[in-house]
Amino acid sequence: MSYRIFNFNPGPAMLPLSVLKQVQEELLDYKGSGMSIMEVSHRSKWFEDVLQDAIARTKRLLGLDDRFRVLFMQGGASMQFCLVPMNLALGDKPLDYVDTGTWSTKAIKEAKIQGKKVRVVASSEDREYTYIPESIPIDEDAAFLHITSNNTIRGTQFREFPRPKKVPLISDMSSDIFSRRFDPAPFGLIYAGAQKNAGPAGVTLVIVREDMLERVPAGLPTMLKYTTYAEKNSLYNTPPSFAIYVTGLVLRWLEEEMGGLEHMEKTNREKAELIYGYLDSQDFYRGTAEPASRSWMNVTFRLPSEELEKAFLEQAQQNGLGGLKGHRSVGGCRASIYNAMPIEGVQALIEFMKDFASKNG
Amino acid sequence: MSYRIFNFNPGPAMLPLSVLKQVQEELLDYKGSGMSIMEVSHRSKWFEDVLQDAIARTKRLLGLDDRFRVLFMQGGASMQFCLVPMNLALGDKPLDYVDTGTWSTKAIKEAKIQGKKVRVVASSEDREYTYIPESIPIDEDAAFLHITSNNTIRGTQFREFPRPKKVPLISDMSSDIFSRRFDPAPFGLIYAGAQKNAGPAGVTLVIVREDMLERVPAGLPTMLKYTTYAEKNSLYNTPPSFAIYVTGLVLRWLEEEMGGLEHMEKTNREKAELIYGYLDSQDFYRGTAEPASRSWMNVTFRLPSEELEKAFLEQAQQNGLGGLKGHRSVGGCRASIYNAMPIEGVQALIEFMKDFASKNG
Repeated sequence: MSYRIFNFNPGPAMLPLSVLKQVQEELLDYKGSGMSIMEVSHRSKWFEDVLQDAIARTKRLLGLDDRFRVLFMQGGASMQFCLVPMNLALGDKPLDYVDTGTWSTKAIKEAKIQGKKVRVVASSEDREYTYIPESIPIDEDAAFLHITSNNTIRGTQFREFPRPKKVPLISDMSSDIFSRRFDPAPFGLIYAGAQKNAGPAGVTLVIVREDMLERVPAGLPTMLKYTTYAEKNSLYNTPPSFAIYVTGLVLRWLEEEMGGLEHMEKTNREKAELIYGYLDSQDFYRGTAEPASRSWMNVTFRLPSEELEKAFLEQAQQNGLGGLKGHRSVGGCRASIYNAMPIEGVQALIEFMKDFASKNG
Repeated sequence: MSYRIFNFNPGPAMLPLSVLKQVQEELLDYKGSGMSIMEVSHRSKWFEDVLQDAIARTKRLLGLDDRFRVLFMQGGASMQFCLVPMNLALGDKPLDYVDTGTWSTKAIKEAKIQGKKVRVVASSEDREYTYIPESIPIDEDAAFLHITSNNTIRGTQFREFPRPKKVPLISDMSSDIFSRRFDPAPFGLIYAGAQKNAGPAGVTLVIVREDMLERVPAGLPTMLKYTTYAEKNSLYNTPPSFAIYVTGLVLRWLEEEMGGLEHMEKTNREKAELIYGYLDSQDFYRGTAEPASRSWMNVTFRLPSEELEKAFLEQAQQNGLGGLKGHRSVGGCRASIYNAMPIEGVQALIEFMKDFASKNG
């Protein structure tokens, strides 16, 4: 048995143990090929099967119809901040963004760098991004409406998505894709760095509705065009094959071991209710997100002092509970409880929190 | 013991067995962290050490002085085809390229897409890219001079690099970096997708001389600027951490098990001399690259007929010699014998070639 902690890191994050064990087991000889999956050609039958399986599972899990294409790209959400306005702007139409903190703010900045006509149609900056704006104004004539479904740093999450009729919704779902069901119909494009809820760092999942591809300007550099990836099924050049392989295994685990997205959503709700229930039952720890906007993925909280926070993080680590430090830009504590975190991890965290509070409260 | 073949794939390619075994061994618990290296934070001490080690080994192996920065990016050489002209053009100065086939041709195309003033100063297109032009005209007033050090498809390789005094040399070294020593001084930038001679797919090594960074236009999107990676030590956003880790292990193997670049170069020369020596000693197989331009990394050859080539590839695979098919754009056969291919693999290939020739000649 290897030593394993409960890993509350915000990303790269915990992966299902059964996935890691399978990677380990077949690392030297992938399915009788006599090669590691890292060594097989991206144009071989072995990798072609890996890629097609990951695409098919993504489509099944999210209920995507044939209008949606699943692409595997590189560069993380940060690269998408640049590519979305570059590819999907539409003449002089405004690009509408909702600003719910750091990642939205960066996405807005990258659109502005390109000289695009950006409008921030809603923002929670007034209360330090501790909530998701309740009503999002929808201009059906905008080029698109961009949201960040979950803010890892502030611990906020959209409970309901805006429902535009015509303007395509675009979302950075890096930190909560595959955590719950949603209707994909209003979305023109969804992107997600895999390293939080879908796999290891090094691959970016992009789901694009076919009509969006018609917007891509012909003169863009080849590697910066969504059409390049769509037309070549993500194989224009060598893809990050190992990261795609592990992501595929995580999706297999989600479908076959966790019982699919409906069951995963139920479990994620249970985990979130457990920990927020505890936070609301005492006054040593203080949750920092407004209750109606609380994230099921990243639970942010403070202790009475920074000194106590330091002691809390150290003792948690000693007790096999890692990665609980808040983002360096806001401080405090954060428990990231993505799909791969079992309910036992959340229970262990709460037990530790109770114990720490009783000794230091 | 796992079943392992001799893997002659052009990339993703063979990795050292000891590296794969180490990855396998520490996959569930990286150095007592209780996490996989895929699960640790990119801002943790664990990953910081991995990154610094990979940078330090790159600098030692290539003899890079303090003017050079080592960056880890994503998107492969194809992304660099776009970023090099975008970042390193200089006013109205021409961008000089040497065209030695597919990859050079693509690099030239991407510079032209951006409307840059491109000059092809030398080309081997006249004889189907089967050689490296002997004399490369050097205009010291150009913005840069771009070459592709090794052409995987045609099996050609620069034996000596051009030696400009002032104009920075830029090279795609995806398929032969770390295969031999060279003087880095004339190079302004070197890039290499890791998946051939340095690691798995999913990370791109970029070596940039500091004066090149002064050229980067301020208004570029953040993720498309070399300065972003240089200023943040490749940690502006989540890097492809697992691919960097494996690359670091390959460089450790190169330094500590293979005895460094001098010894690696000697071994690569021996492997190349063995197989080209055999090719020149008979007339069943025919090498396709002109002798003075032959690559030490990719050995391209034809058999008397396509039918025989098909049989050759099938029987080679059955004999544990994989990945010998030529690139789909040119057909024929190709043995990629990167650093990780032991001399025993080349010997086994030659034995098989002799046997096949005697039965089918």
